[in-house]
Amino acid sequence: MSLNETSQKIIAINAGSSSLKFQLFSMPDEVSLCQGLVERIGLADAIFTMKFNGQKVSKTISIANHQQAVDMLLTSLIEYRIVADLKEIQGVGHRVAHGGEYFPDSAIINDDTIEKITRLSDLAPLHNPVNLTGIHAFKQALPDAKAVAVFDTSFHQTMAKPDYIYPIPYEYYRKHGIRRYGFHGTSHKYVANHYAEMIGKPIADLNLITCHLGNGSSICAIKGGESVHTSMGFTPLAGVMMGTRCGDIDPSILPFLAEKESLTLSQLNEMMNSRSGFLGVSELSHDCRDIQQASKTNQQAKLALDMFVERVRAYVGQYLVKLGRVDAILFTGGIGENSTDIRESVCCSLEPLGIFVDVNKNRSKSTIFSTQESSISLAVIETNEELMIAKDVMRVSL
Amino acid sequence: MSLNETSQKIIAINAGSSSLKFQLFSMPDEVSLCQGLVERIGLADAIFTMKFNGQKVSKTISIANHQQAVDMLLTSLIEYRIVADLKEIQGVGHRVAHGGEYFPDSAIINDDTIEKITRLSDLAPLHNPVNLTGIHAFKQALPDAKAVAVFDTSFHQTMAKPDYIYPIPYEYYRKHGIRRYGFHGTSHKYVANHYAEMIGKPIADLNLITCHLGNGSSICAIKGGESVHTSMGFTPLAGVMMGTRCGDIDPSILPFLAEKESLTLSQLNEMMNSRSGFLGVSELSHDCRDIQQASKTNQQAKLALDMFVERVRAYVGQYLVKLGRVDAILFTGGIGENSTDIRESVCCSLEPLGIFVDVNKNRSKSTIFSTQESSISLAVIETNEELMIAKDVMRVSL
Repeated sequence: MSLNETSQKIIAINAGSSSLKFQLFSMPDEVSLCQGLVERIGLADAIFTMKFNGQKVSKTISIANHQQAVDMLLTSLIEYRIVADLKEIQGVGHRVAHGGEYFPDSAIINDDTIEKITRLSDLAPLHNPVNLTGIHAFKQALPDAKAVAVFDTSFHQTMAKPDYIYPIPYEYYRKHGIRRYGFHGTSHKYVANHYAEMIGKPIADLNLITCHLGNGSSICAIKGGESVHTSMGFTPLAGVMMGTRCGDIDPSILPFLAEKESLTLSQLNEMMNSRSGFLGVSELSHDCRDIQQASKTNQQAKLALDMFVERVRAYVGQYLVKLGRVDAILFTGGIGENSTDIRESVCCSLEPLGIFVDVNKNRSKSTIFSTQESSISLAVIETNEELMIAKDVMRVSL
Repeated sequence: MSLNETSQKIIAINAGSSSLKFQLFSMPDEVSLCQGLVERIGLADAIFTMKFNGQKVSKTISIANHQQAVDMLLTSLIEYRIVADLKEIQGVGHRVAHGGEYFPDSAIINDDTIEKITRLSDLAPLHNPVNLTGIHAFKQALPDAKAVAVFDTSFHQTMAKPDYIYPIPYEYYRKHGIRRYGFHGTSHKYVANHYAEMIGKPIADLNLITCHLGNGSSICAIKGGESVHTSMGFTPLAGVMMGTRCGDIDPSILPFLAEKESLTLSQLNEMMNSRSGFLGVSELSHDCRDIQQASKTNQQAKLALDMFVERVRAYVGQYLVKLGRVDAILFTGGIGENSTDIRESVCCSLEPLGIFVDVNKNRSKSTIFSTQESSISLAVIETNEELMIAKDVMRVSL
């Protein structure tokens, strides 16, 4: 591959509780040099996998913590000659779950940034502390690289107050920051901008509905490039039904169920986050592919699938009204990119609203799958959060 | 007034925890003979009010229980010569909150009906037991009259399974009957049918969105006369924001808040049902008229109003997609019938979806307030749940 003279190497990092995903780019060429994953961090049989230049390496090895995982991945970059010197890596972009109201944009990581991410751990106890672990590990290993935090919430900070305040006592917003934040921001932003570039129109002129459908799903209404509403809320539980998450339900169910089943608060959270969605309704699997397969013969799998489609359609309808005029509905994420049937079910029978599916184009995996007469275009756009993170490192820091 | 020879007197009853509303009709003429209210039942200074023939009587008197309230109202009917003999009252229709899955229609009250309403008290602990009190009191007082239970839930029993099952573990539906039931059914049904009669089209040919907006609010998608979806859910808390109820929120807020504020389950219920909605956001009042007045100068009142409108619009959008083709959007209830501004805000800027408001017609209180070019008609229809109850008594029992 040929890279610009002035090109820089930027690594995008996504740290989970026992995992660390990474992808190294040459920017601004946007060429991916390698990508990989460390799984089972903390265990004696952790797994390190890396793909580059058409090759794949995989090792099972003891990795005690995130610092060791980072050290190992950097050593591997040298070992496999992806970089000659770690100093070549001039920027590190860290995906951070929650930026609260502090971060309407990605931010250079300094003491103040770290202090705020730490303070926000209260709102994202499973994610922000882990993201910080990744940040500290890279700071140790690559002290000279520019480090940038890219928040899942930033893109949605453009929502208007009536759209982010909940109709509960207002003091809970003041005291505890309870409001709609929205997540998956990096994906919604990438997909919207990519579509605008693809059709050669300024994003500022477009009203878009982006459907990020995967094991976690969210939908976003984007007006002129800015998020005006999104289905996830205070937490990534809200909105459409997901693999194991329930999404929106009558909140009265919780006190009723807590009493009937003697559930504690943490058991309620566990039920809503890990035992609901596709898994809860089908009683079979959280994986949409399993559900689609089983739905041919199993009534509950069919029910789960129909519910998912209806709940996505409900948000599409809500956002048609929110935006007034819509130019395109975009599908991304594991389900959005790959499930022809679900895309067709979500978009069908909406001709009175100006939405016409070209069934053949959809089935033949054409990017645009609406007909000529459709006033709203339908398109599949592959998401690339890692690239968006690398681009943000360039934009914010360099 | 002139009544048919064959006309019958039917009384519609709506029993609350400390109140009893009634209206006496001559049917099938649909002429209201009198209506009234007993308030503060159980207290020494209970209030009895009755309107008939342009007159109004009001008394403050000790009323120990619902039986006494019923006896008093029947005595008053004789005293004010509204009926000559109680035997003239041939039917009693009781509004009952929860019919669960047992009652897809109004039902003649017999031992089996009573047993089922009792069993459903678990799902509506504040309403069904009180409704039963009214039923027993009338059975005592008018043993020969046909008694019919008219359920708030029945109209919505036509919803399809993917629309009434929640994406939580399926066992909770099997074990506890947790599903979407929907409420305000009598009002949605009345308004839809009244509109069809008014424009002279069969209800079977119409797709309608009915917005019952009042201190309690719900929205319904009606296809050919049948409810296909409604905003209230397992309980009347769900859906749009209301006077003191929150409607839909990210359910994760509850465990978070319960921990932060050390709230018990019943305190969570109280917060969501009595301290949220207009009251919670504005910190001023639960009454939409107060909020509209205050919104001219008070930011939080303005916020509450904008939130309400956005949440109604979200359901309208959802139901445009649900129904595919919509003939009319109907407004009813205290707010829906009386607030010109809210109707305008809900319907404005939707021209790309075929909705055109005639601002002058709306302000001049015209029933139809859409323009000629609007492909979806907009109308205000005064609801009349009591008449619907009386009609159901006729249909079911006679």
